[in-house]
Parts: sequence; structure tokens; C-alpha cells
Amino acid sequence: MAQIRVAIVNVTGYIGVDLARLLLQHPEVDLCCVTGRSLAGKRLSEVFPHLAGSELVIQPELDTSVDFVFSAMPHKASAEVVEPLVKQGLRVIDVSADFRLKDPHQYETWYGGPHPCPQLLASAVYGLPELHRTEIAQAQLVANPGCYPTGAILALAPAMAAGMAEGDIIVDSKSGVSGAGRSLTLSTHFAECNESVAAYAVEGHRHMPEIRQECARLDSNAGEVIFQPHLVPMTRGILSTCYLRLSQDWLQGTFDPEQAVVQAYRDFYADAPFVRVVDLPPATKHVWGSNYCHVFPRLDFRTARLLVISCIDNLVKGGAGEAVQNMNLMCGFPETCGLGALPVYP
Amino acid sequence: MAQIRVAIVNVTGYIGVDLARLLLQHPEVDLCCVTGRSLAGKRLSEVFPHLAGSELVIQPELDTSVDFVFSAMPHKASAEVVEPLVKQGLRVIDVSADFRLKDPHQYETWYGGPHPCPQLLASAVYGLPELHRTEIAQAQLVANPGCYPTGAILALAPAMAAGMAEGDIIVDSKSGVSGAGRSLTLSTHFAECNESVAAYAVEGHRHMPEIRQECARLDSNAGEVIFQPHLVPMTRGILSTCYLRLSQDWLQGTFDPEQAVVQAYRDFYADAPFVRVVDLPPATKHVWGSNYCHVFPRLDFRTARLLVISCIDNLVKGGAGEAVQNMNLMCGFPETCGLGALPVYP
Amino acid sequence: MAQIRVAIVNVTGYIGVDLARLLLQHPEVDLCCVTGRSLAGKRLSEVFPHLAGSELVIQPELDTSVDFVFSAMPHKASAEVVEPLVKQGLRVIDVSADFRLKDPHQYETWYGGPHPCPQLLASAVYGLPELHRTEIAQAQLVANPGCYPTGAILALAPAMAAGMAEGDIIVDSKSGVSGAGRSLTLSTHFAECNESVAAYAVEGHRHMPEIRQECARLDSNAGEVIFQPHLVPMTRGILSTCYLRLSQDWLQGTFDPEQAVVQAYRDFYADAPFVRVVDLPPATKHVWGSNYCHVFPRLDFRTARLLVISCIDNLVKGGAGEAVQNMNLMCGFPETCGLGALPVYP
Amino acid sequence: MAQIRVAIVNVTGYIGVDLARLLLQHPEVDLCCVTGRSLAGKRLSEVFPHLAGSELVIQPELDTSVDFVFSAMPHKASAEVVEPLVKQGLRVIDVSADFRLKDPHQYETWYGGPHPCPQLLASAVYGLPELHRTEIAQAQLVANPGCYPTGAILALAPAMAAGMAEGDIIVDSKSGVSGAGRSLTLSTHFAECNESVAAYAVEGHRHMPEIRQECARLDSNAGEVIFQPHLVPMTRGILSTCYLRLSQDWLQGTFDPEQAVVQAYRDFYADAPFVRVVDLPPATKHVWGSNYCHVFPRLDFRTARLLVISCIDNLVKGGAGEAVQNMNLMCGFPETCGLGALPVYP
Repeated sequence: MAQIRVAIVNVTGYIGVDLARLLLQHPEVDLCCVTGRSLAGKRLSEVFPHLAGSELVIQPELDTSVDFVFSAMPHKASAEVVEPLVKQGLRVIDVSADFRLKDPHQYETWYGGPHPCPQLLASAVYGLPELHRTEIAQAQLVANPGCYPTGAILALAPAMAAGMAEGDIIVDSKSGVSGAGRSLTLSTHFAECNESVAAYAVEGHRHMPEIRQECARLDSNAGEVIFQPHLVPMTRGILSTCYLRLSQDWLQGTFDPEQAVVQAYRDFYADAPFVRVVDLPPATKHVWGSNYCHVFPRLDFRTARLLVISCIDNLVKGGAGEAVQNMNLMCGFPETCGLGALPVYP
Repeated sequence: MAQIRVAIVNVTGYIGVDLARLLLQHPEVDLCCVTGRSLAGKRLSEVFPHLAGSELVIQPELDTSVDFVFSAMPHKASAEVVEPLVKQGLRVIDVSADFRLKDPHQYETWYGGPHPCPQLLASAVYGLPELHRTEIAQAQLVANPGCYPTGAILALAPAMAAGMAEGDIIVDSKSGVSGAGRSLTLSTHFAECNESVAAYAVEGHRHMPEIRQECARLDSNAGEVIFQPHLVPMTRGILSTCYLRLSQDWLQGTFDPEQAVVQAYRDFYADAPFVRVVDLPPATKHVWGSNYCHVFPRLDFRTARLLVISCIDNLVKGGAGEAVQNMNLMCGFPETCGLGALPVYP
Repeated sequence: MAQIRVAIVNVTGYIGVDLARLLLQHPEVDLCCVTGRSLAGKRLSEVFPHLAGSELVIQPELDTSVDFVFSAMPHKASAEVVEPLVKQGLRVIDVSADFRLKDPHQYETWYGGPHPCPQLLASAVYGLPELHRTEIAQAQLVANPGCYPTGAILALAPAMAAGMAEGDIIVDSKSGVSGAGRSLTLSTHFAECNESVAAYAVEGHRHMPEIRQECARLDSNAGEVIFQPHLVPMTRGILSTCYLRLSQDWLQGTFDPEQAVVQAYRDFYADAPFVRVVDLPPATKHVWGSNYCHVFPRLDFRTARLLVISCIDNLVKGGAGEAVQNMNLMCGFPETCGLGALPVYP
Repeated sequence: MAQIRVAIVNVTGYIGVDLARLLLQHPEVDLCCVTGRSLAGKRLSEVFPHLAGSELVIQPELDTSVDFVFSAMPHKASAEVVEPLVKQGLRVIDVSADFRLKDPHQYETWYGGPHPCPQLLASAVYGLPELHRTEIAQAQLVANPGCYPTGAILALAPAMAAGMAEGDIIVDSKSGVSGAGRSLTLSTHFAECNESVAAYAVEGHRHMPEIRQECARLDSNAGEVIFQPHLVPMTRGILSTCYLRLSQDWLQGTFDPEQAVVQAYRDFYADAPFVRVVDLPPATKHVWGSNYCHVFPRLDFRTARLLVISCIDNLVKGGAGEAVQNMNLMCGFPETCGLGALPVYP
């Protein structure tokens, strides 16, 4: 069978170039077009020496004769790229935030200005395969989740679905610096962020409503989400520490809560090839460079709390890898196709 | 006036050697004895080349003719060292955990085995100068706080004292690796912890009861403390992110809560030379190598929560520097004596 | 065709476990036995959570019914493991230093004590595929090169083969900390080596004679090798900066030396799938997690010098990946089989 | 005695702000003016939270009523700032490269364009106190050395002065990223340079002629300098590894060369309070945050080579600290005044 012809719009950011890395190694894909405005005309391998074997040249404009498009444009600009492609009948994965929030008012609140393309919101599917596998397979447009929401929702979903929690949901996340992108900023300048940990977005982060949306879909009584991200001095990885209060109803209806929590988590992810419910506290290094997510739930009787810790590689499972996983589902390839690389340790 | 003659028992750990660095530069101190079992007989500057100018030789045993002793022994062993010194009339700062918890049952629960010296618990003073300045000045034995409790309690104290909070207190801390000490372990082996973030002590950490004890002293209605530490790939620094629910009583009795929070924090630390209430989210780099603590409180109306973030250098304000601050108070030196070094940035 | 049945002796070091990672993903290999003394009986995935999908249990002893064995034992112990296996007719790759140096006197000088198995030295092949591809394919026992020699020799070989250099050969190498192994030492303790660069082995490093041996094979007039390694605070990667003085004979016989150098390097590696002669100064990040080696030669007319810089991932091309490349050649698989993973950037 | 009134022109780079840190703590100095174009009007402590106690506001223009000026402007712009100040009779330390090279042709070759102020070259003194202490004390204008030259020249000077070396001088330096400054560039973006080592300036670095100038002053037969800098993933520190060939004349005239080398180094630095000739290979961490330089010479009989390794903190001894040391000499303060801080380890 012929490979599908795939394009990446805006290959020059970290998600874009990690998509290139994965798609160049994908057996069912012919990556035949990559675009990037400021670097158009340069060879991909000149800008990114790790892709030294590739003959691709960065194009100024998308070749729309392809079968499948990944848009790695910034939000707003991405919707403008995506809309005509969808109209043309192409299948598209949008890596930006434009089609993640179902409610355009939420978009307006968090991203500033009206939604650039509200008419596509209804048909766009939130691309977290572990929650929406079936709809993704049938979608024409998939909104790839944010990096923080991927880790946080995978940590929370089984508890939400089982009604284990009540009250506020606290998510304290620690991200490597690549999550802030390839654009130059003082806060990602080596000497500024190395040997330092800092909280940021203390007034609220755009990924909060995304986490909240998916929690509320799973549990209509889900509480408020308090989400606080931090930057830690490493390149890749997100560890999310989630604090939930156990529902009294759930506790009283459960014979062995400790066992029930673990079982609920294992059952929820029984068919998820990339999520592993683990017995020991995870570290981001356990998933480095891979599409895996490790989830560690722990019940604390002293405080009637459920602690759940998850780890992902923010650019793979939290970005490019998840996008490829979605493409696999949309195209009928095995879900793990081209994504089997084991984490690189140490 | 003559300098006081000071000794460090067990100089070879990170707190011990940072004490040596600070005391060698302290104008009122003659550091005349440092001990260390396995390295006894070696010159201090041979084991620690950054102290190249010192002529001190590591001794097998303490010279008890000194005026003042810092014990940097591990817990239990430290109490055994401290007891005869106190009996002898020496003034002592114990850097270990042995005299921090007032309740010997708590000690037994968290440290395993009965307290080695319960008779000194009543007179020992918990050495957080910002809370107990007066008692420290009069104490013969001061228990230097743990690194995590220093940062966490400084973040929480003004809120506790003002009755701002109700319900659980969540403290999510991120520590540099030096906090784990100089003993070799797999989790502090460079290739294991570099480029990785991990939670640890998920079954409970010994510093929790210490945080709880001081919160409860300030607010008899203080809730449970949920404390989760993490290891991040940097050498020094602790950032603690604290999540509090605002008390409805306090909210209703307060005209402008946002302003009231900041004012309460500023007032509480008006006389504290090393604590700075800051307007922007702090980073551990802002206090690197110094005895300062930056505290950043922020009120979130959406969720009726108070977020407080604090930063310290775990070995200085969270260890050796705080111990010197306590010594200054105990000896009648200016509180900042020998501790004025500004943070080293970047 | 059936997969070959492969074993790893001593899987618990960094080279051993990276071999496991690569072999678990190799299409022609059934990794059916991994050994490790102190951790025998544990599941591989328990000790190494990044291998979470594997069902392998660490064995106390080798199952000698396999087809192919990698020995990742320390030197001396490795020869003792390897000898009976070779006698038994198995094909073996020794990752240790035991069979790298052809001259047993050199071994004795650098490794202390007589060679444990000199009778195998003649038939063992030095496993640098780019120099010895044909002999490796026919060998029963291959000595996998050291990490530093791999990078240094690949940088030097074309110049040596062309007689470009005269006089001393200076190799200044900078290695990530994983090169020092998984055993705990003070110099690889995070707080000691993070934020620090240091030279080590200033009295001479065991990898020097290995570099010298291969240089002398290519150019009988090759000068002395001065090799100085350094530890830099990163996990993986070796960058070697090599300083050569250009031979006057070669210079006088060459029409356009700048062009000639580049052409000689390109020609030398024309058939080497993993070596890339690059136009811009390389960084270790360009090859991270991959089996590639980037080589950058530059001629300096001012000083009549040739500067050559090479980069490898010390655990892949400098260890486990090179071993798999050798296995591929020995077994008649394509040289790149199971080694196609692109470098992970950033 | 009244403090001298000091200004820093362009406080916002890393050398500028580290000057501010040191001068704020200097007992003889009243830092009363700091300038910075783009950030003028902001409080110093707002831009640099580690200086939280300072009330200084960044000024758009220099207050020329001060006694002493540090110019931390970029080269060329600095000469333009410095010239009128010198004419006015102020004493000035120029941290830029403008007055380091005695030969204006060399300046033109390496910095592009004619020297902006050649008439001051004759009277300007190269501010390496260990070589030019007397002239510095009498100078009106001191050219503070570059960071690399400081480390390299301190490593080489005793050998040059004693005529130990012949032939090329190879200096392979490894620098922390802060050396590249506070301006944003892709090569100092965290995700690009973390976990990576790279050579740069392979076509020649501006600090080479500076090293050469001082070597030639000490030894008129000094060979060519081959200087290759590298960027390593740490914030502060430079380690320079220097390779010299021993002069046959010197070897034959020396009874015990090994002893003679160490003695020559010790003698040369007998009166230098910040240079330590050490017995064990140094690490940049041994001098972190301090004005010390550790120098380690080692003779290799096998290759008739002298290896010398030096370590400095690039922003202190390689920048701001050295500038304060020069100011001390110029103003008749003790050379170590305000510079006594011990290195911060770990």
C-alpha cells in the first residue's frame, strides 16, 4: 500500500521539528512538505543538524496536494490555516489551541479576541486518544491537546470517571524548558533558568480550562481546577502532582479503597498502549523521548486524599507523539505505528 | 572584643561544610575545631578545595574547650553528642532533627524508635528566628529547622497568624539535589537525577510534622498539612508552592482581601531582615547562595484560594545560614552578622 | 527467518541496559537472557522503569543455549566470562577493554596485572566498523571500542590514512557523566559534578593506548597521542577536539589543502552509514540518543594546523549502539538494522 | 574616610550586574549611579530581584560627578563613553575589549573597523593584576581582561616567564553559558545548549590575540597561540586546558623538572592573593562565585609536555571581580577588599 503524503505547517518550532523526526521514521508516511516562513529555502538538515539525512527543503507555502496536514502554527494563525484545508476535504491535526475548547466564550476569555473559526468547533475532536479514541478515528479535524492537559487529564480521568473526588482539584505541574518553545525569551535564556525553579502564570494559565473541560465531561460534579505550572531546569518532561479530596460517598461505598483505586486506574487504561499505571513514584526520565505516560495513584487515609502523579515527555506524548497517535487512529494504522521507541535512559 | 571559639561536629556533610564557609568569614567567630570521623586527619582544604585558604585539620573528636558548638551529625547520633555538651554548659545549635518536634511521640512515629534525649525537649527552642527570635536569644540549645519547613513555614506563617485559612494546607515543594546530602545514593547519582523531576517520600516525609507543629502554634484551627517534596535537577534551592483555602470568616470580615493579604505579610515580616515579601513570582535563583527568603502571596478569587510561593537556598537559609543567624541571636551579635552576602546571580 | 537468541551478561550498567533497550527493539533479535549479580531475581522493568513493557527477569547466570552473547562485565571479569563462550563456539561481543589492545604488554601497563586471556588476542577484532568492517563480519569475538576512542579515532582516521599529520596528536575530550558508569562515586554525585567542569585522569587514561594503536595502524609515522578527558555536567555525549600539525610533505604535495581535507574525509566515510562529515561545528546534541557520529575537520593556515571535532552519544555510538552495529555485521544483517532512530532534539 | 562615589555604565549585562553586586557590598564604595538604556527608569531591584535591598534606579545617562567609573558597554561604544571621562580626569575601568590590545592593527583585524580611540592605547594598562600590579596602581584607565584570557594567561604566565615552552601553545577552554552574555541568542536558549557541548568560533576568537600579546611580553620566543573555546551546559565557570611542549634548553638546564615546574608556579604567584597553585586537578566548582583562580601544572615525561589547567568564575575573576581588584589597586585599597567571599560549594 502506498504511504500517505503528509505535510507539516510551521516545522521550525519544537513540536513541529519533533513531528518531522517522528514522521521521517514512520513506515506509513511520506513526509513530503514542511513549511516555515522565516527559514524558507533552507534545507531542513541545515537548520536542524540532527535530521542530517533528510533532503527536505523548508517551503514558504503549503503544498495542498498532500493527504494529511499537521498545523503547528501559533493559535489564531492556525485556525486560519486549518479552515480552508478542512473545506478542501483534507484531514488535519491542529497542534495549536484553537479547537481544544468547546466553548468559544472560554476561548475568548483565555486567548483574547473572538474565536477565529467557531463553525468548526462542533466537529473538531479533542485529541486525547485515551478518552476519545472512537471519535478521533472518524474525525476530519483533531485538536491536539496541550502538553500540561495531556499529563494532568491522564492522571485525573480514572478518578473523575469513577466519581472518587469531591471539591477542588489541584494540579501542580513541573515542566522542562522546551515546553516554552523555540522563540527566544529571557525566561528561557540558559543563565536565567538554569539552576532555578520558578512558578509562572500565577494569574491563570490557558491550559486550566482545557483540564477542567475534560474533567467535567467525565464527572459532572467535578470541582474547580487550580492549576499552577512551574519551570524546572531540564529540557524535556512534565511531572504533574495532582491533589484530590476523596468523595465521602465513594469511600463509604467501597470495600477496599486502596485496592479499588489501583484497580480503577488499571481498568481505565487496559486498552491504552501508551499509559502505564505504575507501582513506584515515576520520574520524567522514565519516559524521556517516548510516547509513554506513567501514572501513579496513591491513597492517603490520614488526610482522605488521593494523590496522583503523572509523567510525560512534553514534546512527544505532550505534543508530536500524541499527534502521530491521533493520525494513526484517523488513518486506520495501528495506534502504536511509528511510536514504538522506548524511552532513552539515563 | 575577643572572637568566640566555635566548633562544628561532622563538618563533612553539605550543611557542615557550608557552616564552615560561613563561619570562616564571620567577623566574631574563630572557627577552631571541625570534626569528621572518616576523614579525620585530612586538611579541610584538601577535602574541600573551595576552602583552600584554611589551615584547619579535620579532627576525630570535638575539642570541648570551645564556646559554641554546631552539631551537624545525623539525627539520634546528634542528640547523643549534644546532651553532654549542654550538661557542660555549652551553647549548642543542633542542625539535626532531634530537638525540632516538641512531642516525643511524633518523633517516635517519624524517626523510628524512642527519642534519645526527651529531657531536653522542653528547653530546646525551635530555631526559626522569624517566629521565635526572643526565645532563641535566651536558649542554650536551639534546634535548627529542616530545609523544607523553613521555606514552608515562612510562606504560611502570616496567613496562619491572621486566621486567613481553613481546611487542608497543601505544600508542594521542589528541592535541589544538595538537599539529599553528600552521601552517595542512586537517586542522587548525576545520570539518574539530571534531566528528570520526581516526587519522593510519597508515603509521608519527616518534615511534615515540623510544618504542622508550627502552623498549629500560630493557628489552633490549622488544618492537616499535606506535604509532597520533589527532586529537581539543580544543586541548591527550594521553591515551595502552598495552596490554602481562604476562611469564609476572614473573607467576610475583610474589606479589601487582596490588599489585606499583602499588608499582613509585610507587617509580619517588618522586622525580619532576611524575608522579603515580593510582588513578582520568585525563583530560587533570586536567593542563590544567600540567607534570604522571598515570599510571594497571591489571592485567587475564582477559587477562594490563597497561593503562597516561597524560595530559599536550602543550604543557607534552609541550613547553615539559619544556624548562623541563630548563633548571632544567641550571642548578641547583630542578626545579619556574617550573613550579608547578596545572592549570586545568574 | 527465526530471530537470533541473544543474551547480555551484566545488564545493570549503563552500557548493559542501553543494549537491552536497543535489542528489545531489534527486529532480528530475541533478547532472551539478561544477567546481573546483585539484582538477580528482579524484573528488568522494576529496576529500569523505562523498560516497563519487558517481561524479562534478571538472571544470576547466563543461559548458554543462546546464539549470541554481549558481555558488559568489567575488564578482567569479562575475559573470564568470554573465554569459555568462545571455546563453546558462541559469537561474542565484549564491551569491556579486555580484547581491544593487541599488545598484552600495553594491557598490563594500563590495566594492572597480566592479560587474563592472551590466547584470544590474535583472533579478536577491534570493533570499529568504519575501520574493520570486513574482519568484524568474519570474527567470532569482537572487542567493542571504548567510548572516547570511538569518537577520537573517527575524527583522526582520515587524516592518518592520508598522511596529513606529523608530530603529536592532541585529543581534548569532553564527556557527559554517564560515561563514568552507574556505580556510585563522589565525582558523579549530582551536587559535586553539576555546574562544574573538571579534567580527570591527568596521569594518563586507559583509552589513550587504544587511540594510539589505531592511529599507528593507519599511519606508521603517527606521533604520540596526548589525550585529556574532561567531565561536563550533562548525561550523554562526547565531544572530542583534536589538534594536529599538518605534514609539510602533505601540504607541499596538495594543490588546494582546504578542499583536499574535506574531500579526504568525505571519501573515507563514503560507505559509513553512521558517520557524517559536517560543514558546521557539531554539538553533542546533534547526535543525542542515536548511533551517528558527526565529524568536522577545519584547516587553519595561520598555524598550519588541522582541527577536527567529533561528536557521539557515548552510550550508543560509543557503546551499545556500536555493539549492535558489530552484531549486525557479524550476523549478516543490514549494518543499520535496529539502529535507525534519529537523534532526539532538543 | 569617605567612601568613593562609583558609577557603572550599562549595568544590565551580566558583568555589569555582577559589578553592582560586588560594589554594593564593598566597604569603601558608594555605588551611586548605574545606567542602562533600555531599562532606564526601572528600579535595579525590579530588574534584578537578587538585589532586592537596593534603592538604586537605573539612569539613562551617567552622572559624571562621581569619582570612578566602570564601563560595561560593548566594545567600540565603550571607547566612546570612556574617552571624555578620561579627558575629564576620572579614573576608569573599561570592561570591554577596546583598550586591551596594544596594537591598533590587531584591534582592526579582530574587531572590524579602525580603533575608535587609538590615542589612549599607550596609557591604558592591561588589567591583569598578577602581571601588571604596579602599572595598574598608577593608571588612569585600565582595560579589564577578557574572561578567557584571564584564565589562560594565569595558566601560562609562569611557564612563559621561565622560558619553559617552545612551539605552539594550545589552549582548549570550556566556558559556562553566562560568558555569552544576557542578550538572547539561539545558542544560549536553554533547550539548545543544555545537555550539549559544542565548540564555537572555530575560525578564530577575539580573545586569542589578547592571550598571545601577554605571552609574547613574558617570552619573546613564545609560539603561536591556538585557542579553541567551547560552551558547556553550566552557568558560570571557565576551565582552560593548556598544552605546551617543553623547551629542550630548559629541560637540559633543569635538575628536577617536575619540582622546578611547581616551584616556578608557586614563586610566580607568591604575592598573588587570588591565585592558588593546586596539587589536584581543579574543577570550576572550586572557585564558583569567587575571585579565586586555581592553577594546576603537570609535567608529562612521556611526551615532553607541560599540561596546565586553570579554573575561574568567568563573571568574577574573569570579569566583575577582577575589575574590583583593579579598582582596589588604583585607589590604594587592600587588593582583596570587598572580594573575600569564599567560593560557594556545592
